[in-house]
Amino acid sequence: MLMFKEYIKKQQQQINEKLASLFDQNSQQSRLLSAMKYSLMAGGKRIRPILCISTASAITDHYMDVLPVACAIECIHTYSLMHDDLPAMDNDDLRRGKPTCHKKFDEATAILAGDALLTLAFEILSDETLYHQEPQVRIKIIRSIANASGPNGMIEGQMRDIASETMRLKESELEALHLLKTGALIAASVNVGAIHANATERQKQQLDIYAQNIGLAFQVIDDVLNVKGDPKLLGKAVGTDRSLQKNTYPSLIGVGRAEEKARQLVKNAIESLQEFDHRAEPLREIANYIVFRSH
Amino acid sequence: MLMFKEYIKKQQQQINEKLASLFDQNSQQSRLLSAMKYSLMAGGKRIRPILCISTASAITDHYMDVLPVACAIECIHTYSLMHDDLPAMDNDDLRRGKPTCHKKFDEATAILAGDALLTLAFEILSDETLYHQEPQVRIKIIRSIANASGPNGMIEGQMRDIASETMRLKESELEALHLLKTGALIAASVNVGAIHANATERQKQQLDIYAQNIGLAFQVIDDVLNVKGDPKLLGKAVGTDRSLQKNTYPSLIGVGRAEEKARQLVKNAIESLQEFDHRAEPLREIANYIVFRSH
Repeated sequence: MLMFKEYIKKQQQQINEKLASLFDQNSQQSRLLSAMKYSLMAGGKRIRPILCISTASAITDHYMDVLPVACAIECIHTYSLMHDDLPAMDNDDLRRGKPTCHKKFDEATAILAGDALLTLAFEILSDETLYHQEPQVRIKIIRSIANASGPNGMIEGQMRDIASETMRLKESELEALHLLKTGALIAASVNVGAIHANATERQKQQLDIYAQNIGLAFQVIDDVLNVKGDPKLLGKAVGTDRSLQKNTYPSLIGVGRAEEKARQLVKNAIESLQEFDHRAEPLREIANYIVFRSH
Repeated sequence: MLMFKEYIKKQQQQINEKLASLFDQNSQQSRLLSAMKYSLMAGGKRIRPILCISTASAITDHYMDVLPVACAIECIHTYSLMHDDLPAMDNDDLRRGKPTCHKKFDEATAILAGDALLTLAFEILSDETLYHQEPQVRIKIIRSIANASGPNGMIEGQMRDIASETMRLKESELEALHLLKTGALIAASVNVGAIHANATERQKQQLDIYAQNIGLAFQVIDDVLNVKGDPKLLGKAVGTDRSLQKNTYPSLIGVGRAEEKARQLVKNAIESLQEFDHRAEPLREIANYIVFRSH
């Protein structure tokens, strides 16, 4: 477990350095770039980029080339949080214990900085000086990330999340929502790691089962932590879902069954990796971390 | 001139059919897709996609393959208008004579539908069933469009536009603002048409001069029409720039000199095409249309 913590810390460090370097090229320090950097460097767990790198490293020893792809995914994840936090959506003042972008800057800046991070992701993926890879592989990666982030993926999930605020969902509807809202980009993170590493079709299928399961487990545990987590560790308030009468796994099936569901999902995820060798150990550890994390 | 009007009409029709077809694949009619389609099909002039197609057709006879690229650019242009219109930015109720997206739907939907159109553009460009082209050419096209739309292009222009509301700009600053806010995507429209058609480096340079000049001329005339245009033809109110004390060419240098400037820019644009044959006629006509249009 200690080794895994060190692994995560090392990965986070590499990702953070690469993300920060994206802003070094620009000598001018505009308000737009400051807002983008503020949100991007606000201390995220970097789970999606770590999944991307760990997937590539489960298949090939030359996996660090995938780092720019991992960073592009983090740009998209961050933009989605910035827009989610806006007054017209979740209206959140705090994110990871710090003022949200529209609180620190203003609403127009937060909208535009979010747009800019989304666009930057595709600048990174199409820049051959940043990301070295065969054009046909790059196109597949761009397509996977765009599909997962677009109107048939993450954004549709967010729309359903907003619509569901005024109605009671069934468990299957809540699951469909999360598979779009958070599952799609998590699945893409794993998928593009596999594409980059030239995985076989069978490997891609097994990794997809892994990703679908941990994506959902991650959301279930997020809901559980909102009920029984420590606000200091989480960097945000707890109990907010209940007061907002949100559709969550604890509210639908209870905390105990939600935790049991998460454990089963993680078990499925790890089983799907049985044909992978020791290089998939970080992916197995990540799956376990999702259930046993405190924030 | 009649032939040119027919040319534009035919191009608009092809573009509109292709844009509409992007939504046919989706059997489910979600609120998100409805909002995207509403803004995309609200009757834009399609200048950017027409520029893209006309540039390709100035170089090659096999130019209609570029249509999906042209549509992707229109998706990005439309998203930028949707976000510009939001209450936190320009707070516009009307666009092309119709309620803006956040008025027709709501603010959250307009933000997300804008995000979705931006992402859809990259889905189109990376989808080999929609756009047939060599991967290395596609990557160059994606890079050109992403750079023009991102934090060093269109979005930075919009940030400067917002910041300039409370200050008086010099003409050079206003020009720099417009080269980013509208010029970058117009230049990319021409550039990707040239990339698609496998233009020589010299052709690309000449086309870039053309694009820079017409992009600026377009904005100058937009400002002039806000002073002396017909609100019925424009589909929006006139005189709004003066009441908002906006930085415009008429306010900085007067209507007469602004019109003279636009004519000079268009002359430069047409001169830059002198090595092109009759197939560049639509590009020359578009340049003239920009100065002589009434809306």
